[in-house]
Amino acid sequence: MQQRAVRTREVLLRAAAEVFDEVGYTRASILKIIDRVGLTTGSVYFHFKSKEGLARAVIHEQAKDLEFPPGEPGLQHLIDMTSYLAVEMQQNTLLRAGVRLAVEQNEADLHEYAIYEWWARKFHDELVAARSKGQLLPGADETAFASLLVAAYTGTQIMSQLSTSRTDLPCRIADMWRCILPALAPADVIAGITLPTAPAEERA
Amino acid sequence: MQQRAVRTREVLLRAAAEVFDEVGYTRASILKIIDRVGLTTGSVYFHFKSKEGLARAVIHEQAKDLEFPPGEPGLQHLIDMTSYLAVEMQQNTLLRAGVRLAVEQNEADLHEYAIYEWWARKFHDELVAARSKGQLLPGADETAFASLLVAAYTGTQIMSQLSTSRTDLPCRIADMWRCILPALAPADVIAGITLPTAPAEERA
Repeated sequence: MQQRAVRTREVLLRAAAEVFDEVGYTRASILKIIDRVGLTTGSVYFHFKSKEGLARAVIHEQAKDLEFPPGEPGLQHLIDMTSYLAVEMQQNTLLRAGVRLAVEQNEADLHEYAIYEWWARKFHDELVAARSKGQLLPGADETAFASLLVAAYTGTQIMSQLSTSRTDLPCRIADMWRCILPALAPADVIAGITLPTAPAEERA
Repeated sequence: MQQRAVRTREVLLRAAAEVFDEVGYTRASILKIIDRVGLTTGSVYFHFKSKEGLARAVIHEQAKDLEFPPGEPGLQHLIDMTSYLAVEMQQNTLLRAGVRLAVEQNEADLHEYAIYEWWARKFHDELVAARSKGQLLPGADETAFASLLVAAYTGTQIMSQLSTSRTDLPCRIADMWRCILPALAPADVIAGITLPTAPAEERA
């Protein structure tokens, strides 16, 4: 693609994310998205065939703007990644819209399971690194835990969104880790782990 | 309510669940639901003000047809309950529609968090019973675990639905427990726990 076309596609993707984040799939429309960026209808259809195409792109590219915290792969890095995601969900429109569409995709008949597998692989890589560093309990199954973490993160963010518009998400993710860690790592490894502490008002 | 009115409401609730389960909130319509039961529009509006009212009822009453397995409250009972739910999701339309609507409720602007709290309380009661029987590890927080279990169950069923139309849900719930149990209960309690075993073809 030419540089201008690449830029146009980017602008469209982000405008679509804004609209999907605000009103969801059903109430979003191509027109609403075009209005926001001042492009022609033709340039939208050149890049994305339909609202459905835009939604799929937002789901697949939800992680595009993420800058995961640095650090050696392993248990601490995995925890830092999920804590970063919890904060990022509060301000990163592309991530938020992508997660929302992935959760509510039945309404749009999208059948996009691949994004869940993508996250599971990402978590799995960190668990494999943790294993090689001797950070995991002998019986802990990296594949099953990667899947559990994606499921628990997904459900936790749904509950946080409904109850506090995601204000308490970092705090809920820390609680999730407090519950899960003793099944994953031995006590001496847990003792060396830093969990994010939420500000006092969040814990009220 | 008169007995006939009660029956009419029941018929409507179940017809609504069928339609929401099949096509989701957006594509469901009062007309589609009326068509299914052969009632008059008036009798629908007598019981439920709108499609939104029907959706709220289906969310709140999702557990109405459940017959939880018998047994003394405690860890085994909690596990049996979630295994029962995993199988029930495959055949209980009211539960399935209620869960679907609860997950996708942003699309309908419903803001129904109470159902998540209802499930968390239900799980919490079992964990409190487990605690009083000495089945939990000293550090395990019953409230945090109840919340984690609702989140993990919610996310797991979304992933199972997208990947296998919920065929592998019982198996995924068993995997979830295999991961979580070592953080919740001491080894001798776990040794006495029975996890459902999935048929061989499901594990492929």
